[in-house]
Amino acid sequence: MAVNEIDKLIQLLGRLPGLGPRSARRAVLYLMKRRDQLMVPLAQAMQAAAEKIRACSECGNLDAQDPCAVCRDPERDSHVICVVEDVGDLWALERTSAFKGRYHVLGGTLSALDGRGPEQLNLDRLVRRVQEQGVDEVILALSATVDGQTTAHYIAEKLRAHGVAVTRLAHGVPVGGELDYLDDGTLTAALNARK
Amino acid sequence: MAVNEIDKLIQLLGRLPGLGPRSARRAVLYLMKRRDQLMVPLAQAMQAAAEKIRACSECGNLDAQDPCAVCRDPERDSHVICVVEDVGDLWALERTSAFKGRYHVLGGTLSALDGRGPEQLNLDRLVRRVQEQGVDEVILALSATVDGQTTAHYIAEKLRAHGVAVTRLAHGVPVGGELDYLDDGTLTAALNARK
Repeated sequence: MAVNEIDKLIQLLGRLPGLGPRSARRAVLYLMKRRDQLMVPLAQAMQAAAEKIRACSECGNLDAQDPCAVCRDPERDSHVICVVEDVGDLWALERTSAFKGRYHVLGGTLSALDGRGPEQLNLDRLVRRVQEQGVDEVILALSATVDGQTTAHYIAEKLRAHGVAVTRLAHGVPVGGELDYLDDGTLTAALNARK
Repeated sequence: MAVNEIDKLIQLLGRLPGLGPRSARRAVLYLMKRRDQLMVPLAQAMQAAAEKIRACSECGNLDAQDPCAVCRDPERDSHVICVVEDVGDLWALERTSAFKGRYHVLGGTLSALDGRGPEQLNLDRLVRRVQEQGVDEVILALSATVDGQTTAHYIAEKLRAHGVAVTRLAHGVPVGGELDYLDDGTLTAALNARK
């Protein structure tokens, strides 16, 4: 064996979530058979994304431009900010088309176990946005896990002094579940019934 | 949304076997968080493999050099050729370390359903190798499916006139199973008990 280029590619692909060594080998063979249709375009798309995509300095969303498309869109309601843990959660909410405000990506939750404190989250920027941009409502769209709800509680306390309504997703989010895995209907219902 | 670079990357990654749209999104977020450690190296490894890896003109194996590492290796027995459907099957056999001869990759099996005839397989080159390289034995390591066994029968008939021993993997290969999914022990046993 010792085919360096192939082994290296298999090893790197196998680090993706959902792919192990065996499926990585299958994927590499699949790619080698579709060199021009898939392999080269995929390599180029990955390179281009790595070069161009950055976190939005406003909200933390990923985009090729800064501020991101959501923050630039004048149609979107800048008085409502929806706080999410991760860009994947933002994408999940965008797929429902149920929310027309802006977002704020925390980059995780508080976690005693993983030793993540408030200073590791994108929180100062959220407080500044609430202060400076005439925000009326902050929706905390965090996972219904212990860490998610602890984080929601912490943010609600932090924003209390700023005279902004802080709401949470309605129940309907299954306890213990992660936001990104929900179906669109449940997400829409939870968003509309927020309290 | 309309983040072109991200959507394009998700769409291309989702075409890999074993990844759907949802797991492709997860993979892209995972990559974006590991831009320098994983995303850029993966893009470069994919580009390098697409540029350098070619099918060996001798046996059809994939390698950065032609002839491939197996065909170049003087330690390997050039009197025995193991015929496999696909490079994935060659890799599976190499992982067992049970075979020290050369290989020949057919690039598929005969298939009435898919309309694949002998001219679409790497067969002429196999016959020429048998004629020119003093081959004593051809091992047909093809899947125990109808198409695989039809192909083995066809090749055995074709090689009959050339005075070469044609063997097949011993039973032990589960009927209906594909070679690439077998565990190494079963593959080794089947190879040693060939008849």
